[in-house]
Amino acid sequence: MLDPQIKERVQLGFEKQAFMAFIGAELTKLEEGVCEIQLPFKMDLTQQNGFFHGGIVGTLADNAAGFAACSQMTLKQAPLTVEYKLNLMNKADGDRLVARGKVLKNGRTLKVCESKIYIVQKNGEEKLCAAALATIMTVSLINPTTKKNSS
Amino acid sequence: MLDPQIKERVQLGFEKQAFMAFIGAELTKLEEGVCEIQLPFKMDLTQQNGFFHGGIVGTLADNAAGFAACSQMTLKQAPLTVEYKLNLMNKADGDRLVARGKVLKNGRTLKVCESKIYIVQKNGEEKLCAAALATIMTVSLINPTTKKNSS
Amino acid sequence: MLDPQIKERVQLGFEKQAFMAFIGAELTKLEEGVCEIQLPFKMDLTQQNGFFHGGIVGTLADNAAGFAACSQMTLKQAPLTVEYKLNLMNKADGDRLVARGKVLKNGRTLKVCESKIYIVQKNGEEKLCAAALATIMTVSLINPTTKKNSS
Amino acid sequence: MLDPQIKERVQLGFEKQAFMAFIGAELTKLEEGVCEIQLPFKMDLTQQNGFFHGGIVGTLADNAAGFAACSQMTLKQAPLTVEYKLNLMNKADGDRLVARGKVLKNGRTLKVCESKIYIVQKNGEEKLCAAALATIMTVSLINPTTKKNSS
Repeated sequence: MLDPQIKERVQLGFEKQAFMAFIGAELTKLEEGVCEIQLPFKMDLTQQNGFFHGGIVGTLADNAAGFAACSQMTLKQAPLTVEYKLNLMNKADGDRLVARGKVLKNGRTLKVCESKIYIVQKNGEEKLCAAALATIMTVSLINPTTKKNSS
Repeated sequence: MLDPQIKERVQLGFEKQAFMAFIGAELTKLEEGVCEIQLPFKMDLTQQNGFFHGGIVGTLADNAAGFAACSQMTLKQAPLTVEYKLNLMNKADGDRLVARGKVLKNGRTLKVCESKIYIVQKNGEEKLCAAALATIMTVSLINPTTKKNSS
Repeated sequence: MLDPQIKERVQLGFEKQAFMAFIGAELTKLEEGVCEIQLPFKMDLTQQNGFFHGGIVGTLADNAAGFAACSQMTLKQAPLTVEYKLNLMNKADGDRLVARGKVLKNGRTLKVCESKIYIVQKNGEEKLCAAALATIMTVSLINPTTKKNSS
Repeated sequence: MLDPQIKERVQLGFEKQAFMAFIGAELTKLEEGVCEIQLPFKMDLTQQNGFFHGGIVGTLADNAAGFAACSQMTLKQAPLTVEYKLNLMNKADGDRLVARGKVLKNGRTLKVCESKIYIVQKNGEEKLCAAALATIMTVSLINPTTKKNSS
């Protein structure tokens, strides 16, 4: 089971991203190396056909990967997205997006993750709408105490 | 020079994307196979350190590619993003993002584009903050008249 | 079960790729939307540390995706790789590579596939060494008979 | 100008890759953050239509990026490919492939590179046939002396 301190820290990290609140995304699940983010539909998030914008799908793919990676970091480390690649497969036409990220390789410096993004359709069924691969880097947080001492 | 009808059509396509208005993005340049989008900073668009969120950078990369591709389509065609891949290189810490998309291969069915995304720093200088490759598909718009006739 | 005609055709397509024979790769499994390719180690295929070269890993990822896609095409269609993206995760140090491709989205024009590449280690255990996402296009083969008739 | 020691070291690194000799590739240019690799056509490297195989194109893209990155490393560091993404744009039908890699971001741990791959056609003209983005990691080489001492 995931350490409660790590869990709290990831939740806090999510809340610190103003963009997540702006679009209305919620962190709905967090386990060791696994993260789920959900986002209810609103018109503000659409492209020309009234579906979720591809950039929104990419945003969730990136974040589901990043927070999955973060769940395998210490409290003195933080995730930084190096790159991600997204394939859009089916139109994101529905009531809610669900992004599920998973760590494939838990490296010391780099974590490789995959995200699958599902659209919850009007009929309630989930449909795969995108897949992504992402590389997340572990960066060391500078210890404020050490920093003060060294100055 | 770009056909004024095409130009108007791309501009209209941009305006139809509610998400562009929501984040405050502007289409600032359009030529044959080339597109520029700009986005002023606002706190709503940030990640945990107060920089533009990576998902926002990806959104602009995707759209700059998509509208560059759209500039080489007829009025009976529309762009659809198949996939994109984004490398984040420098922190998006500044007053404004500028995304520049360019068509590398103007294929009939698929157009391959590259986008470079720059951050305009506090000192006014542009710095490359991300690069992307994107594949955009040309889809045929169904003629409304034909559609009516066939029903 | 996969149509024997399709199976034979994919096998033939594999054999027509001189590069597969050159490196010694074998098509070891083919089902509807699924393909496995294996490649025994030889020194000719290595990078500076004596492991399989990353380009070889990418080649198998591309082909496992392409032939998985081909298994869902008619005899009058052929696969064409549009793009692929590969994450190398663990060193390809072992006796054999096994690439498994799978169609995630069986679109009419485009098929999106994922490949996982495993290294069979000295101890006989498989280890994930790379993951890929690939976009494969369906191209129509020109019917030679029709062509003759129409000329 | 590039330090002759670095130049020699990259050339040596290239020669240590058995796969480069196997396919017949040559390192034709090396500058600070820039690398060019050429590969003459031979039937062994082809796919079903007699063009260079996509895996070969990807191999050159990966290596041109990797050695461009290597030109900006010290003698105690070595390049490791984290990931690459390749878009194939035009058929690789011609006498020779030319891959040109360039470092876009020279980070301490990670270097982001782009590669463009050209096919030299029968008429002698170069045509862009693929574009790639690659992430190359800097790994520290273990000092052999230190290693001996510590054992």
